[in-house]
Amino acid sequence: MKQLQVELNDKGYPIYIGTGLLRQKELLVKHIKSKQVLIVTNTTISPLYLGDVIKSLKNFQVEVVELPDGEQYKNLENLTKIFDQLLTKKYSRNATLIALGGGVIGDMGGFAAACYQRGIPFIQIPTTVLAQVDSSVGGKTGVNHPLGKNMIGAFYQPQCVIADIDVLDTLDDRQLSAGIAEVIKYGLIRDLKFFEWLEENISLLLARDKDAFAYIIERSCINKAEIVAEDEFEAGIRAILNLGHTFGHAIETGVGYGEYLHGEAVAIGIGYAADLSRRMEWITSSDVSRILSLLKQAKLPVVPPKEMDVSRFIELMSVDKKNVDGKIRLILLESIGKATLPVNIDQSLLEQTLKNYAG
Amino acid sequence: MKQLQVELNDKGYPIYIGTGLLRQKELLVKHIKSKQVLIVTNTTISPLYLGDVIKSLKNFQVEVVELPDGEQYKNLENLTKIFDQLLTKKYSRNATLIALGGGVIGDMGGFAAACYQRGIPFIQIPTTVLAQVDSSVGGKTGVNHPLGKNMIGAFYQPQCVIADIDVLDTLDDRQLSAGIAEVIKYGLIRDLKFFEWLEENISLLLARDKDAFAYIIERSCINKAEIVAEDEFEAGIRAILNLGHTFGHAIETGVGYGEYLHGEAVAIGIGYAADLSRRMEWITSSDVSRILSLLKQAKLPVVPPKEMDVSRFIELMSVDKKNVDGKIRLILLESIGKATLPVNIDQSLLEQTLKNYAG
Repeated sequence: MKQLQVELNDKGYPIYIGTGLLRQKELLVKHIKSKQVLIVTNTTISPLYLGDVIKSLKNFQVEVVELPDGEQYKNLENLTKIFDQLLTKKYSRNATLIALGGGVIGDMGGFAAACYQRGIPFIQIPTTVLAQVDSSVGGKTGVNHPLGKNMIGAFYQPQCVIADIDVLDTLDDRQLSAGIAEVIKYGLIRDLKFFEWLEENISLLLARDKDAFAYIIERSCINKAEIVAEDEFEAGIRAILNLGHTFGHAIETGVGYGEYLHGEAVAIGIGYAADLSRRMEWITSSDVSRILSLLKQAKLPVVPPKEMDVSRFIELMSVDKKNVDGKIRLILLESIGKATLPVNIDQSLLEQTLKNYAG
Repeated sequence: MKQLQVELNDKGYPIYIGTGLLRQKELLVKHIKSKQVLIVTNTTISPLYLGDVIKSLKNFQVEVVELPDGEQYKNLENLTKIFDQLLTKKYSRNATLIALGGGVIGDMGGFAAACYQRGIPFIQIPTTVLAQVDSSVGGKTGVNHPLGKNMIGAFYQPQCVIADIDVLDTLDDRQLSAGIAEVIKYGLIRDLKFFEWLEENISLLLARDKDAFAYIIERSCINKAEIVAEDEFEAGIRAILNLGHTFGHAIETGVGYGEYLHGEAVAIGIGYAADLSRRMEWITSSDVSRILSLLKQAKLPVVPPKEMDVSRFIELMSVDKKNVDGKIRLILLESIGKATLPVNIDQSLLEQTLKNYAG
């Protein structure tokens, strides 16, 4: 088992990465300071891993909220189900919430923990690659709104993150690739050597080699933890983690949450960001080709859905957390391995990029 | 105009107290760092004061959300209306939200600001005595749940608080008295001299003497600001602000939000807390009489509604933010002018208190 630390003064916490962690009772229990525990999970994960977690919690009051699986359920309505259960069972402010699932469960569980009685402790047990490498670390929690992705939420840090690599055994290929999209992102925004490693070893990942996964999860979490430690509330550098996300969020919102996995939409968005970076003359055509090639090898989409025309993209991108006074700002690439801070965009170049890809 | 400061490191902010403040354009504008401004208000306050605020915002994009007036509307459903408007109008993360109203509007507006895009700046313009002396200061925001008051929320500090005493002119008697309940609380929990001043000058307050109100608002805010500066997230001393509130919240939830004003329910709760403190032999019967007498002179209720029997109280009080592992804990009085931290309660004494008052 590897242990990393997110350094955040009095809010710092460990990330555990390894195999067989879900069955290590002490790892979980030492982070719980209460008798009352609520596990939030979904209908896919529950039959696979809920039993392991409950087995570790023999001397606790344990309740479970099981939500439907998918991005389309990450909304205030399902968040309310968590509050209902906490209140029906009379859970106190010292109770602990465990989010057992992928990014959707982590975001909703974390946001529920942030808001219930103005904040209760919570633990992230991510069960997808995407959640293990990205969404479970850093304290971004929230739900979607019909008009915008992740528009309602909080910065709220967990007590710890337990990333058990064995969950790979039950992850389908689409979910696996979606996670790799965020991994490629880390290489692109600040870690050229990692990008090169991914180019050389993508076949190991597709073959589900556990050592390779242990490596990419660790290296992704190190990158993320460093950025978050520097800028917890995204006043500056943290925004580079959003490479490809403004396009990606527009796709997720535009075609309906759940149609695309988050990582798939981000992959398309990374292609857009690369194309626009080339039009800004910051990177070359061959850089763009390298990026698209790696995404495709990872079995990720790089072409947007047909219904997303230029005006629909612009409409949806004009609501984004990086925008200022309603003006679109994006993360682009200065080179492979170095992202810009959010930059104002030449609208005509943006439209060229959007037209270039328009279905 | 008086200016106080809530000292909270990088989150500190001023409280302005005086007359004619709503028409002082610069006071408001200097705290707005964006072009986009959303005003959240209610149907009672809107015709009275919205015009003044909008007049100060000539060079801004201003949108308004007008909610129905009353505690029964402080819920996730109405919170959603604020998010809908922010997103429909494409408001960015640098937009400013102004909460113009009493405690309900302040709590909901503040919580919406806390959650929208994980946090946008907001300004409190409290228009009731209760909001001016208590709820607008300190960063507690949130909404009610059918099973518990203020159970969903966030600690989120405003940019400033603008307390214009002229709003007294339009406040009805019931609202006025409800505000005085929280003022009496400050005397009881940590300011004996203030309690004595209130005993001597209650008639000035009922006669709406503006100098007297300027004094009680300032002194209440000083007390609150000191407590909040010491304990922003209620890890300790801040809980004493909750004197009477566990009983009061049970009444508000039990008979249906909106039946009792918050301050009215708190007044009854203060009477309960005094009675129980006497049964603990910490204060005397004559202390209890003094407290009840002042509450009654302020035209506040001290007897609970008939439908609240002992078991209903216990049931509702077992969900409270001060509880640990589901066990009821209360703020009581060691003397007039000194509150306890949350203490575990001898259930039989609590039941005696509840029976003593039972309708």
